[in-house]
Amino acid sequence: VPIAPRYELFYWSGIQGRGEFVRLAFEEAGVKYDDVARGEGGDDAVVKMMAGKGAGLRPFAPPFLRVGKLVVAQTANILQFLGPRLGLVPDDEASRLAANQHQLTIADLVVETHDTHHPLGPTFYYQDQKQEARRRAAAFMKERLSKFLLYFEAILADNKRSKGRHLVGKGLSYVDLSLFQVMEGLSYAFPRNLERVRRRVPRVQAVRDLVAARPRIAAYLASPRRIPFNERGIFRHYPELDP
Amino acid sequence: VPIAPRYELFYWSGIQGRGEFVRLAFEEAGVKYDDVARGEGGDDAVVKMMAGKGAGLRPFAPPFLRVGKLVVAQTANILQFLGPRLGLVPDDEASRLAANQHQLTIADLVVETHDTHHPLGPTFYYQDQKQEARRRAAAFMKERLSKFLLYFEAILADNKRSKGRHLVGKGLSYVDLSLFQVMEGLSYAFPRNLERVRRRVPRVQAVRDLVAARPRIAAYLASPRRIPFNERGIFRHYPELDP
Repeated sequence: VPIAPRYELFYWSGIQGRGEFVRLAFEEAGVKYDDVARGEGGDDAVVKMMAGKGAGLRPFAPPFLRVGKLVVAQTANILQFLGPRLGLVPDDEASRLAANQHQLTIADLVVETHDTHHPLGPTFYYQDQKQEARRRAAAFMKERLSKFLLYFEAILADNKRSKGRHLVGKGLSYVDLSLFQVMEGLSYAFPRNLERVRRRVPRVQAVRDLVAARPRIAAYLASPRRIPFNERGIFRHYPELDP
Repeated sequence: VPIAPRYELFYWSGIQGRGEFVRLAFEEAGVKYDDVARGEGGDDAVVKMMAGKGAGLRPFAPPFLRVGKLVVAQTANILQFLGPRLGLVPDDEASRLAANQHQLTIADLVVETHDTHHPLGPTFYYQDQKQEARRRAAAFMKERLSKFLLYFEAILADNKRSKGRHLVGKGLSYVDLSLFQVMEGLSYAFPRNLERVRRRVPRVQAVRDLVAARPRIAAYLASPRRIPFNERGIFRHYPELDP
């Protein structure tokens, strides 16, 4: 029996953030992982690694994963590393390239979503950029949100191998989990505006529903391991940004 | 003799943009590529592919690469695909993960640089967000620019295998080319502010100089294939943003 590797996930303890895309992959696979900053060391464990005080490659920002001596940072890079190990991506190169491509497009959507409440960047608090946030959020709602979601709707329709049910290949991949997470986050942050787009993307919604119904994901979402959405993460509910 | 694949790069014809990271890899490798939109079809060739009118996976945005039936989008994904084929990344998995990680961190810096002139997003022209751009650019200069560049300086110092001369492994990789491109872009956009940081990152500057001196890169930069920086790309020189 091969020894299972010990997976240590480093991410801020109080938010879902980008760490959640990695958590969902572990949870769906039923593979144990240590959510380091939620243990005794707290967020300091994350900070120390970023200061180059751990072995392995120094990360610029969390999330990052430590597996033995290897440290892997950047969400899409972590998921690409874990995908084959967790059985969450097909074997062939074309499918892996497609999965990574979609994950990076989801990352772009995540950045633009974050920027709705932080258009002037991470340096200022939301309270210091509320007017700018209103303009950026309105533009996002008008032009970007539907553009991204209709794109994924088209990708699903194009994927004949899964009859439109999955983004990559025939079955569930880590990209489906990430699309679920984005839909949950958008639904939390912009319930009114998302509702208007949701009916135009039935395949995307079906992926969201399919993932939510996976037994391990459902158990995870109902557990205390799932940190609730809040106003410190990527997806924040400010009613003034969701008219 | 194996037949060389035909590489078709799709990117907007009038700017360096994200396509330039891919062009530099081809140029350094001395491998022919077709810069499709700069041929007869123009930018329409890019638009058609995004509308799903070509074979292969539909891209969300350029750059994307077509190699036979395969279409690969997202800059870091393209470079990860090309790296081994062009001899621009080491063979081992840890090095490839490191290269992809660094490329994604460079991509994050590129997004933040772009947002200095477009804090309210791609929907509005620069002229419609000049005040906001000033605030965002000032915050970027104060906290973000040096944070990113000092990070890459530390990565270079940490990389004993290359004696601090390369970001990944012992020799030149596509990530060094990308760091060069970012330094060139920042130097064009923010000559005054970059000068203040440059002296604090001698290893980063040395990578920039080393890449610029590579014979094929030098020939490329002097050729009409290198599109000049301009105020339609990522790196724009607006003096009011570089006090």
